[in-house]
Amino acid sequence: MGDAVPVITFLSDYGPWDEFVGVCHAVIARRAPRARIIDLGHGVARHDVRAGALALRAALPYTPPGVHLAVVDPGVGGERRAVALRVAAQGRTLVGPDNGLLALAAQALGGVVEAVDIGESPECLRPISATFHGRDVFAPVAAALADGVALDALGQAIAPDGLVALTLPQARSVDGSVLAHVLTTDVYGNVSLDATGEVAAAAGLRTGAAIVVEIDARSTPGRLGRTFGDVAPGELLAYVDARGALALAVNGGSAAAALAVAVDDEVVLRAGAVRA
Amino acid sequence: MGDAVPVITFLSDYGPWDEFVGVCHAVIARRAPRARIIDLGHGVARHDVRAGALALRAALPYTPPGVHLAVVDPGVGGERRAVALRVAAQGRTLVGPDNGLLALAAQALGGVVEAVDIGESPECLRPISATFHGRDVFAPVAAALADGVALDALGQAIAPDGLVALTLPQARSVDGSVLAHVLTTDVYGNVSLDATGEVAAAAGLRTGAAIVVEIDARSTPGRLGRTFGDVAPGELLAYVDARGALALAVNGGSAAAALAVAVDDEVVLRAGAVRA
Amino acid sequence: MGDAVPVITFLSDYGPWDEFVGVCHAVIARRAPRARIIDLGHGVARHDVRAGALALRAALPYTPPGVHLAVVDPGVGGERRAVALRVAAQGRTLVGPDNGLLALAAQALGGVVEAVDIGESPECLRPISATFHGRDVFAPVAAALADGVALDALGQAIAPDGLVALTLPQARSVDGSVLAHVLTTDVYGNVSLDATGEVAAAAGLRTGAAIVVEIDARSTPGRLGRTFGDVAPGELLAYVDARGALALAVNGGSAAAALAVAVDDEVVLRAGAVRA
Repeated sequence: MGDAVPVITFLSDYGPWDEFVGVCHAVIARRAPRARIIDLGHGVARHDVRAGALALRAALPYTPPGVHLAVVDPGVGGERRAVALRVAAQGRTLVGPDNGLLALAAQALGGVVEAVDIGESPECLRPISATFHGRDVFAPVAAALADGVALDALGQAIAPDGLVALTLPQARSVDGSVLAHVLTTDVYGNVSLDATGEVAAAAGLRTGAAIVVEIDARSTPGRLGRTFGDVAPGELLAYVDARGALALAVNGGSAAAALAVAVDDEVVLRAGAVRA
Repeated sequence: MGDAVPVITFLSDYGPWDEFVGVCHAVIARRAPRARIIDLGHGVARHDVRAGALALRAALPYTPPGVHLAVVDPGVGGERRAVALRVAAQGRTLVGPDNGLLALAAQALGGVVEAVDIGESPECLRPISATFHGRDVFAPVAAALADGVALDALGQAIAPDGLVALTLPQARSVDGSVLAHVLTTDVYGNVSLDATGEVAAAAGLRTGAAIVVEIDARSTPGRLGRTFGDVAPGELLAYVDARGALALAVNGGSAAAALAVAVDDEVVLRAGAVRA
Repeated sequence: MGDAVPVITFLSDYGPWDEFVGVCHAVIARRAPRARIIDLGHGVARHDVRAGALALRAALPYTPPGVHLAVVDPGVGGERRAVALRVAAQGRTLVGPDNGLLALAAQALGGVVEAVDIGESPECLRPISATFHGRDVFAPVAAALADGVALDALGQAIAPDGLVALTLPQARSVDGSVLAHVLTTDVYGNVSLDATGEVAAAAGLRTGAAIVVEIDARSTPGRLGRTFGDVAPGELLAYVDARGALALAVNGGSAAAALAVAVDDEVVLRAGAVRA
């Protein structure tokens, strides 16, 4: 890695309460003292692999190249594989469980060109616990990569096309409507959809226009805007969020609560007013 | 900046759940790889500009000189300006929204001597999102400053006296009483007032003395002490908190709940026992 | 310390909401600009000295040698001493309140060989506040140690055997049962006991076996497994957690809630099915 400081980014669902994140930092600091760790966040909803995969894909375009460590791992200690992946994008590797968590980021970075099963890597801390592979498997392997160890020395080569995929629902525009699905909701009650601003434009929805949001048989009026202040407090806003996804928010409130939606629910957005 | 490591401090209301803080770190690491980031905290109550301004003013005397990035930004994407400010104190600049968030810290650091509107800075990440200026405006400008770019190269010069001010209520001592107001309450229910220990002393309140706290028509007995253990569990304590402010706490409980107070409520403290 | 970067680890109950952790980082950065700070976590339950002591003992084997700063301090500003301790393990010192928080870690690191009362250390920030010794006492002393100041220059030598101890309950195996106690519960409702896997084995409990967990007069069926997936959702699992402690969990739920247990409760585990 020459003289540049190697970078490890780290995303997980370990949360802000336990010592888990700190212990992983400590393990990395011992194995790769020169590496810089950038925490991308540890507040992914517990065991929510899809939310983690979306957060990782959203964050990586903004990070320096390096080792991208991610742990959202409901199957820890079970049959799922632990993997390290080299992607087409220059200088980037991904480390984490093979449960779909890394799939969206890998695809966005050009696809996986080399994959290794690290579950029994010589770098693992032993004995390997059954419940904390972040500490015993993923962090030490990420540190070894940052320290310059070659990927193929870290475990058994596996076929990239055998990796677990992650399938997202697919929004589409039909007859002036957007047919979308809820991908995630955040702690503020903002609701992120599988549609983009382009899909909304293709459906003829214009920024500033009155819209209707339909979920099951319920219709809620709102507006397509740019930011929270574009609607009055308590009113419903559709907007393109910071990840580029079409999203729903209530100014000063919770769209998830107001709309009573959950992940995977179907949501229709169309121009115009609520039908009487 | 010579050989010294440039410092960026970072305060926000992004919270511990999303990837927002991490993405800002990543943006800074790409633009200013040598800079050290010191997180001053990201748990400011959401959109509470005054709480953020108070936390920033309290923290900066303890930090090294550097770039002080702060983001509590309910008006993101709207009309409010984004600014970078050079203050009289040597080697310190402030970066954030022009909504009062930076005002108390700027004043404490000797006042603003140069101000720049950075909303369209050449350093911004483009396209600039409507909802995440931390990533697209504030972090890259803070990084550029830490990397040695001159303030006047980062945007349009503006008049320091046109910046948004932040007005706090003003406690005073009258006839042996302190007439104060609630500035903030924290997650433990501790209540911070706009008074200082000096105001309490001017009102004749002595450490160790029995006091009465009056809010509306309610009177609650307590004691002026130094620390939580100076009163029995469940009892009310008035004390000078770590920021130098007169504050109210209940040993092992919540003063905000026990007193049923909210921000801006008027609070009277006087010596003596509750009148029958 | 030569050319190696000195390390300070930092554990506390300051939580993710206030600026307290950040201000301590800032204080350290000013006194010891070269030191690297590794946050081991700041989410210890407020004022829970035993939970902090257990977390510290669990984390330190994974950290580089250095200064280990820990602050869980219900008696701040009162009579308890502030201390810095050199332990038998090479290159490690502990800094924190003398209330038992450091006791388990010190014991695990070979015991205290030199102890200093730092409450009036020349390194303290003055005036010393009554409620924030993290900022005014512990962080500056930890930074001075990392900067190479000798321990005996930091305060008054005290007798190691006069330090406050921390006594834990002691599990034992009797007649094919484990008689254990609840040490901690975490935010997920996982319940950590004072027993180890060895104690379970000595009681004849075998991995994979059906077990009964008895608390007061209540009996709950479960299974001794390795990881959460070893039982069906909603079922009770006993397992050896990442700290090496025997623990109870409910797959996808809260064992603390399901069992209605609290810290120090007595728990009996035995092989077999619930008696009718």
